Amino acid sequence: MTDTIMEPRAKAGPRVKQMIIDCDIHNVMSPKSLDPFLPNRWLQHQRAFGSRQHSGSVYPKGSPARWDAFPPSGLAPGADLSFMQQQHLDALNVEFGILGCLSPAGSQLDPDYAAALSAATNDWQIAEWLEPEPRLRAGLIVPAEHSEQAVAEIERLAGHPGFVQVLLVARSSAPLGDRKYWKLYEAATRHNLPVGIHYGGGVRGVPISSAGWPSYYIEDHTGMSAAFQAHVASMVFGGVFEHIPDLRIALIEGGFAWLPSLAWRMDKQWHRFKSEVPHLRRKPSEYIRDHFWVTTQPIEEPHRSADLHKVFEHLGGVDKVMFSTDYPHWDFDHPAHAFQVRLPAGHRDKIYTENARAFYGLPARAA
Amino acid sequence: MTDTIMEPRAKAGPRVKQMIIDCDIHNVMSPKSLDPFLPNRWLQHQRAFGSRQHSGSVYPKGSPARWDAFPPSGLAPGADLSFMQQQHLDALNVEFGILGCLSPAGSQLDPDYAAALSAATNDWQIAEWLEPEPRLRAGLIVPAEHSEQAVAEIERLAGHPGFVQVLLVARSSAPLGDRKYWKLYEAATRHNLPVGIHYGGGVRGVPISSAGWPSYYIEDHTGMSAAFQAHVASMVFGGVFEHIPDLRIALIEGGFAWLPSLAWRMDKQWHRFKSEVPHLRRKPSEYIRDHFWVTTQPIEEPHRSADLHKVFEHLGGVDKVMFSTDYPHWDFDHPAHAFQVRLPAGHRDKIYTENARAFYGLPARAA
Repeated sequence: MTDTIMEPRAKAGPRVKQMIIDCDIHNVMSPKSLDPFLPNRWLQHQRAFGSRQHSGSVYPKGSPARWDAFPPSGLAPGADLSFMQQQHLDALNVEFGILGCLSPAGSQLDPDYAAALSAATNDWQIAEWLEPEPRLRAGLIVPAEHSEQAVAEIERLAGHPGFVQVLLVARSSAPLGDRKYWKLYEAATRHNLPVGIHYGGGVRGVPISSAGWPSYYIEDHTGMSAAFQAHVASMVFGGVFEHIPDLRIALIEGGFAWLPSLAWRMDKQWHRFKSEVPHLRRKPSEYIRDHFWVTTQPIEEPHRSADLHKVFEHLGGVDKVMFSTDYPHWDFDHPAHAFQVRLPAGHRDKIYTENARAFYGLPARAA
Repeated sequence: MTDTIMEPRAKAGPRVKQMIIDCDIHNVMSPKSLDPFLPNRWLQHQRAFGSRQHSGSVYPKGSPARWDAFPPSGLAPGADLSFMQQQHLDALNVEFGILGCLSPAGSQLDPDYAAALSAATNDWQIAEWLEPEPRLRAGLIVPAEHSEQAVAEIERLAGHPGFVQVLLVARSSAPLGDRKYWKLYEAATRHNLPVGIHYGGGVRGVPISSAGWPSYYIEDHTGMSAAFQAHVASMVFGGVFEHIPDLRIALIEGGFAWLPSLAWRMDKQWHRFKSEVPHLRRKPSEYIRDHFWVTTQPIEEPHRSADLHKVFEHLGGVDKVMFSTDYPHWDFDHPAHAFQVRLPAGHRDKIYTENARAFYGLPARAA
């Protein structure tokens, strides 16, 4: 009964008056999308060697998409801009949408091919998405595991106004506070770009839990938040925020109800183990408060809905919480249904639009 | 400044009136402790081949112990029963203490040596700890990765009244809902023994985070809770509680403030992915509520202390919360200082003694 597996809670859902900035939309490439953007040398390489990735990201076989997100054009869900405009951007009153292209470029083993594929993906995003649709912005795809090449791609395109963050995936080859990533963070921050860490990725041979390989996809999906937890601990304890005080991180599609208790645990550990990480000058929770933002989807659903307010309170308020839908994926959150509690008016504007506007430096709303 | 690294918040601390059942005390073997209990065949093996473990559990080099826990006898902290009696059992008014011996037996690669070492460790626990000190109980050491041998050890000693649980470690070779562990759970439950999962372990080559190897011990320690999260998801989604409805699990030294948000996330995932795990008949959070207990140390410290009550509330109350000190380790929680909030009288008795008394089937207090 494949249908019931992927059934989105709300398909297209009702039209809404609330304007949103959607911090997680997936644009998808078709098999030949990148051909016009790849130099001939790399087209030949692709034909000869194909994709050699360290990752093995696994989605359920059916499709990761909402069943109603298959465009009539026959393209894949997320691959047809005009259908996305109609079904998502127009219908849901999306003021701006941030594209997170789940590209295989970042996990290529060949550093030069990784760089070429990243560049082609970004050029394709400019030509096919950013230029035709002014509501869209995009995450810059980089060969994150190859520092020099990642920095070069940031330098090449950070000046383009369509790119509003550098996009990484959560299951990386090392926790993201590892120093091999610092040049990338320096380059992003030099250009005032935040770094987004998105659900996904994976490194072959590295079990996706900290205790081996789980039997079920539902464990894989549930357990992704553990990778995010490892990154928060790694970036804070590693001292990257002392080294790069303006570095800003968005945790995308990783949940956030786990973040307060992680912060408590980190503060307690730090109290005992300060001497191992003398580069820290403040409590771990203060770095978390100042440097991490989160997106909402999949929004946590406490057993008593009202406890979501308590989760926000433990986060230190809603100033770092940014709305996202994950369109066109199966676990899409519709803005009218995502919250099972009524948000106070001051929270609504922050979460639906203003936090993301500030974080991504998006234009003020026309009066 | 090694001293400051390991400084326990409270050393011996004040004498206390509150009686406690301490669910996590570490008894330690000396280099030759097991010699009288190991058959000659395995003593020869040990001399020829030594210990071949899959694990690489790493403690800070200094010592994992409180500085004041080194006995005058020159034995290691936790290795001298009479010193433990005086410094811990008597001084802290310990009604019962549950020993969690951190033995290398469970991670031996050779299944027969693993079995022999487990048996010797348990026989040593009976002779040197359980028989001389009626306040002590112990976790049964088993070669958990070798199912047949683990079951045999449970069958051999489950009838001994000193053993009140089967003890596993958190960084196992697979998430603990994997079917290779079910025979072990069946055997434990057949003898009405719960299963304790304790901080520690590790499998060589398997990174201890879900995103590779972290740089610092403080990340290792913080991140241990992710392994516990993987086990909760694995055991629930794997259906072991449908298969063994009386199986009871104690999560020891893994924290618990992360458990409510994990339960929310699991319920939400299950809503979408039910069809992958049709063996589940109830919501994931219901299995969690009925089958998991937690110990307190290291007790979580919310930024506003009073929020600990909220954490308990999200756990569904304090009926599954059992006090522990982790004596003689550096991060020992003293009963008079562990809680930064005042516990209501009804909560105190449950947490300090009665929950553990019921869970481990300990005798009622003398009138």
